[in-house]
Amino acid sequence: MSGVWGQRIKFSIFGESHGKAIGITIDGLPPGINLDLEEIEFEMGRRAPGKNEFSTPRKEKDSFEILSGYFNDHTTGAPLCAVIWNGDQHSKDYEQLKNVLRPGHADYTGYVKYAGFNDYRGGGHFSGRLTAPLVFAGAVAKQILAKREIFIGSHIYHIGGIYDVPFDKVRIEPQLLRELRRNSFPVLDEKKGQEMKNLILETKKELDSIGGVIEAAAVNLPAGLGSPFFDSVESNLAHLLFSIPAVKGVEFGTGFEIAKMKGSQANDEYYIENGKVKTFTNHNGGILGGITSGMPLIFRAAFKPTASIGKIQKTIDISKKESTQLQVKGRHDPCIVQRAIPVVEAVTAMAILDLLYSN
Amino acid sequence: MSGVWGQRIKFSIFGESHGKAIGITIDGLPPGINLDLEEIEFEMGRRAPGKNEFSTPRKEKDSFEILSGYFNDHTTGAPLCAVIWNGDQHSKDYEQLKNVLRPGHADYTGYVKYAGFNDYRGGGHFSGRLTAPLVFAGAVAKQILAKREIFIGSHIYHIGGIYDVPFDKVRIEPQLLRELRRNSFPVLDEKKGQEMKNLILETKKELDSIGGVIEAAAVNLPAGLGSPFFDSVESNLAHLLFSIPAVKGVEFGTGFEIAKMKGSQANDEYYIENGKVKTFTNHNGGILGGITSGMPLIFRAAFKPTASIGKIQKTIDISKKESTQLQVKGRHDPCIVQRAIPVVEAVTAMAILDLLYSN
Amino acid sequence: MSGVWGQRIKFSIFGESHGKAIGITIDGLPPGINLDLEEIEFEMGRRAPGKNEFSTPRKEKDSFEILSGYFNDHTTGAPLCAVIWNGDQHSKDYEQLKNVLRPGHADYTGYVKYAGFNDYRGGGHFSGRLTAPLVFAGAVAKQILAKREIFIGSHIYHIGGIYDVPFDKVRIEPQLLRELRRNSFPVLDEKKGQEMKNLILETKKELDSIGGVIEAAAVNLPAGLGSPFFDSVESNLAHLLFSIPAVKGVEFGTGFEIAKMKGSQANDEYYIENGKVKTFTNHNGGILGGITSGMPLIFRAAFKPTASIGKIQKTIDISKKESTQLQVKGRHDPCIVQRAIPVVEAVTAMAILDLLYSN
Amino acid sequence: MSGVWGQRIKFSIFGESHGKAIGITIDGLPPGINLDLEEIEFEMGRRAPGKNEFSTPRKEKDSFEILSGYFNDHTTGAPLCAVIWNGDQHSKDYEQLKNVLRPGHADYTGYVKYAGFNDYRGGGHFSGRLTAPLVFAGAVAKQILAKREIFIGSHIYHIGGIYDVPFDKVRIEPQLLRELRRNSFPVLDEKKGQEMKNLILETKKELDSIGGVIEAAAVNLPAGLGSPFFDSVESNLAHLLFSIPAVKGVEFGTGFEIAKMKGSQANDEYYIENGKVKTFTNHNGGILGGITSGMPLIFRAAFKPTASIGKIQKTIDISKKESTQLQVKGRHDPCIVQRAIPVVEAVTAMAILDLLYSN
Repeated sequence: MSGVWGQRIKFSIFGESHGKAIGITIDGLPPGINLDLEEIEFEMGRRAPGKNEFSTPRKEKDSFEILSGYFNDHTTGAPLCAVIWNGDQHSKDYEQLKNVLRPGHADYTGYVKYAGFNDYRGGGHFSGRLTAPLVFAGAVAKQILAKREIFIGSHIYHIGGIYDVPFDKVRIEPQLLRELRRNSFPVLDEKKGQEMKNLILETKKELDSIGGVIEAAAVNLPAGLGSPFFDSVESNLAHLLFSIPAVKGVEFGTGFEIAKMKGSQANDEYYIENGKVKTFTNHNGGILGGITSGMPLIFRAAFKPTASIGKIQKTIDISKKESTQLQVKGRHDPCIVQRAIPVVEAVTAMAILDLLYSN
Repeated sequence: MSGVWGQRIKFSIFGESHGKAIGITIDGLPPGINLDLEEIEFEMGRRAPGKNEFSTPRKEKDSFEILSGYFNDHTTGAPLCAVIWNGDQHSKDYEQLKNVLRPGHADYTGYVKYAGFNDYRGGGHFSGRLTAPLVFAGAVAKQILAKREIFIGSHIYHIGGIYDVPFDKVRIEPQLLRELRRNSFPVLDEKKGQEMKNLILETKKELDSIGGVIEAAAVNLPAGLGSPFFDSVESNLAHLLFSIPAVKGVEFGTGFEIAKMKGSQANDEYYIENGKVKTFTNHNGGILGGITSGMPLIFRAAFKPTASIGKIQKTIDISKKESTQLQVKGRHDPCIVQRAIPVVEAVTAMAILDLLYSN
Repeated sequence: MSGVWGQRIKFSIFGESHGKAIGITIDGLPPGINLDLEEIEFEMGRRAPGKNEFSTPRKEKDSFEILSGYFNDHTTGAPLCAVIWNGDQHSKDYEQLKNVLRPGHADYTGYVKYAGFNDYRGGGHFSGRLTAPLVFAGAVAKQILAKREIFIGSHIYHIGGIYDVPFDKVRIEPQLLRELRRNSFPVLDEKKGQEMKNLILETKKELDSIGGVIEAAAVNLPAGLGSPFFDSVESNLAHLLFSIPAVKGVEFGTGFEIAKMKGSQANDEYYIENGKVKTFTNHNGGILGGITSGMPLIFRAAFKPTASIGKIQKTIDISKKESTQLQVKGRHDPCIVQRAIPVVEAVTAMAILDLLYSN
Repeated sequence: MSGVWGQRIKFSIFGESHGKAIGITIDGLPPGINLDLEEIEFEMGRRAPGKNEFSTPRKEKDSFEILSGYFNDHTTGAPLCAVIWNGDQHSKDYEQLKNVLRPGHADYTGYVKYAGFNDYRGGGHFSGRLTAPLVFAGAVAKQILAKREIFIGSHIYHIGGIYDVPFDKVRIEPQLLRELRRNSFPVLDEKKGQEMKNLILETKKELDSIGGVIEAAAVNLPAGLGSPFFDSVESNLAHLLFSIPAVKGVEFGTGFEIAKMKGSQANDEYYIENGKVKTFTNHNGGILGGITSGMPLIFRAAFKPTASIGKIQKTIDISKKESTQLQVKGRHDPCIVQRAIPVVEAVTAMAILDLLYSN
């Protein structure tokens, strides 16, 4: 029962979709860090809805306000709290449907866990809107990591059977990651990207939604981060990735496909280049024994289709314990993957920052 | 940097493959639990090597000794520490190869992290042997869960392109899980199991190894366990699953395949049966919003091929920073999946127990 | 480096004296708790300055705003975040003295720890003003405890050599604790209270300050809270009490005076009353082996004199590394004890709530 | 409910007085530390009973066995587990009195918390014997701190109204602390020490026991350790000190006496000596705002009299819920303070080590 994460750097989130505000407190940041606030705005903007036809046209005011921990343009070392104010929402709309469980959402489990007291408006504390504070925290973390030349980037790897080129097939340089970041629909193969877009628009017309897979990478990580067993890099990263609503799978390096491999293929053989230890392949995704090897960290996260769809669905009314039907109103994302990109990068940055400072 | 895990129930592991002993301390267990020690031995036996031709013929003495926390045949509520003594090992054998990095192992990352002071004999603290204490802890957890009718079971889902029937296609009853548990090579489709066995033996002849995927399920979990965001059931389970050496992927419910689905397919629609809320499908694997729904918890974990293989591999000598070749001696598991089954179940039981008591 | 505390219920504070806001997030509260917001305001008022001539005449706007976790007049179970906005302060005044270390304050240690980047205005994050969020959290905790008939109260036990009657000499009933709470200068012996007040006014005239000791009690605690060793009730309570700025000592039951006792005196002998186990004396302050015994929990906390005084003091300028003199301007509390009363009660309630829910 | 403590370095204790073994696992130690095992034995010996007439003549085998984390005479960085085997004890003796609550002990609270399943023999997990693993851990911590020139020492400050010279009145140099450490009854004023010894022997003849106060100091701590609020140095140290059975009070610097002081006395004024910032006095005990100032860290811990006394005491039989009498048999410490000295130093070293590595 914890909205707090981290060992050395602790992140505490709070807020509900239709409450006053959502936010995050970051405790344990090093003092003296000058933050590029515009860059943070840019990251927030990547997640914000309404950018193009592939996401919901709903507008959300996602500008943040730093309440503490930042003074004279530098972090103070004291907890940094930032809030994002919620605008006026049509909260009344939720009243009539509050007992009708939306399939794929947390309505039922939230109802059970919180004995019916959870804020049901727009998903309440379960809302994807809560990823905005994560993006804020990730943007802060990214800036601190960038000072150590550590860069994180990602692309849309798979939507509805259409696959982009995997990171493993290209040279992952900071420059490539930066370019992907400036692309609102980041893919390595633009042709595949166009196919994905077409599929999303088609799905949107059907009043349906579709899932997808994001692939992310972090470069220039020092070897030696993480620990065997309970503090493995995979454990920490997966912990945070599975905190993102809608994520149903996480894999590192070759991931599930490694089950088809022989050891002689999967073992990444070593060589030395300019005095640095490297591996010819990177099936382990930059992690061995739970610890970074210095090779690029590579992983993928699978997102389920947006649960809110315009199609009629079978469900129940939890107050009456009766079967009923539901057609979710409103303008929803036909595919959440595009907007989830900065969230995946954000939690990656958070996890790496904590690993770096607790190492 | 932590061999300690858990919020309400804390598990602390220790030990090295060729040290005096390996073990685990479990803190926070409820008092008054009578443990079936033979049942624990049985679980330990499931992981132990040398059972059949699909695992290493190496024998390991895996009997445990409880040092504390157990009195008059019941848990006392004080920390329960159990050790497993290491037998006499040919530790000298490791001396000559200690600087030659074994591909796929943690030799390099351990060397960097611990500045060369890690116990390199047989993988030291990184050894798969450290999963024996996890199986002990899991066996204890399973017995406590069983008193609440919560059962965990698993099968080999995939090895080298050969797939078993997924849990989603059968009725997952406690009885089925119990039967799988008594099977040393548990599959739902014995014909597929035989194909897998053949492939393993073939791979063994080639002095190679092969990876695989384990699918596990937990039934009769109450709805309402876990929390949104940082304490989601997925986050906790994935955290522990990725603590198991060789795991490179974890997915829940439909997992990565959900990326191919439309929302209208992936959303599990609700109905009521005998006053209980259920879903027609279970693409979410029994978890919504990070919280258990009461439907079976289903997930899969991908294991890479055993890193130790008899084939010649390219590598480097870390002391000389020179290229060299390596042929790993000894008798190793051609496929670790069979022995990993009880480990996957163990960490699942550990995670569920902690979630249950911290809820 | 952590502004986060608690095992099952996590409290995260943030804010600086002259920043935008101070606040606290409480994670893990049970859902469905209706809060008496006026009662919280009352508690905040007890800590607020400017009430009478014994505290600083400075006015602070201490009204709180709940940002999340509270919906339809009940806690939701999601993180409850409350902020207290800072008013317009004369922050410029601090600029000229920012390098002159105020004796008794954290100016020097904050400067070293945060490499000079800490917010130096009014003590920044070190300010006693940060205890306002603690009082908020404590007021919430108190209301939840009160539903279980657990009550916390305290009185001023000692100021400058003048001692009130100790709790051990009276019958500690909920009614007594309630009365003390309504008293802005709570003592058991009003005559001693008058002497204390006279001493404070005298000290104020001298432009000096004075320390004191608060004694607190909690009644109706169930036996069995806490654990031996690292989670003893004393450990948890002392941890939080020493988090309050200015606390330099904490003792339970007979405390330091127990060093003068024989075992035959100090051992609290048992008897049975109406089927309940009780002790004739309570030298252990309601705790044995780190666990509550069901007898009243009694402890005392010593506060040093307010560090800000109008007298001239020797100090240094940290930028010039030169000796200098300092006369702290402004209107400060001649004795902080009166205003610290609700803070001591607050952290007590926080600690007990966490112990209760993690038991 | 936690036998685990620490943020960056985690200490997990286990064991019961009459079980197989007691022990501790230390996770997060830096690799490459060569330990002086004889020095650890020496520290263990300081705590061991039977040294002189002021402690119990009972002999305990306190030699430790390191099970893991130590290889080729250096820490490996993996968890270091050490056990201390329990000898053959007259455990049967406890059977007949197991329901008769010993006043001052944890018999009653342990019975309630663990529902009667706790190991009642010799106090079980509550036994003072469990401080032996703490001394082991502290001895390891001390050696790591000594490499940074940080030294910890202590003396008996007060027993039964007889007071030694306080640290504040002498120059606390590493040499003094080392000398105290070699003294089995360490005091600054040997005459006062003799008076204390006489009082203990007198108390022993009366079949009674007596309490006392230990004063400890740590020198050469860098300024800047610890944090404001929940991670203050006082909070961390007090947390561990109150984990030691029998401690009922903890105070820093001038402690409770500071309540008698004026701010103009209590504020430690600054000066510069050889470029280093110092204070003329040290009423704050080396801590300001929860952070070390670089001045000696000074604190005191009050111990209650040994609960086991030979005198007849009133009590109850918990199974019959009847009044009865009890005369505790066996040879007990007339004063525990002498043997508690290394325990106080041990937890101090543990706390400082964790603060140092998590800073």
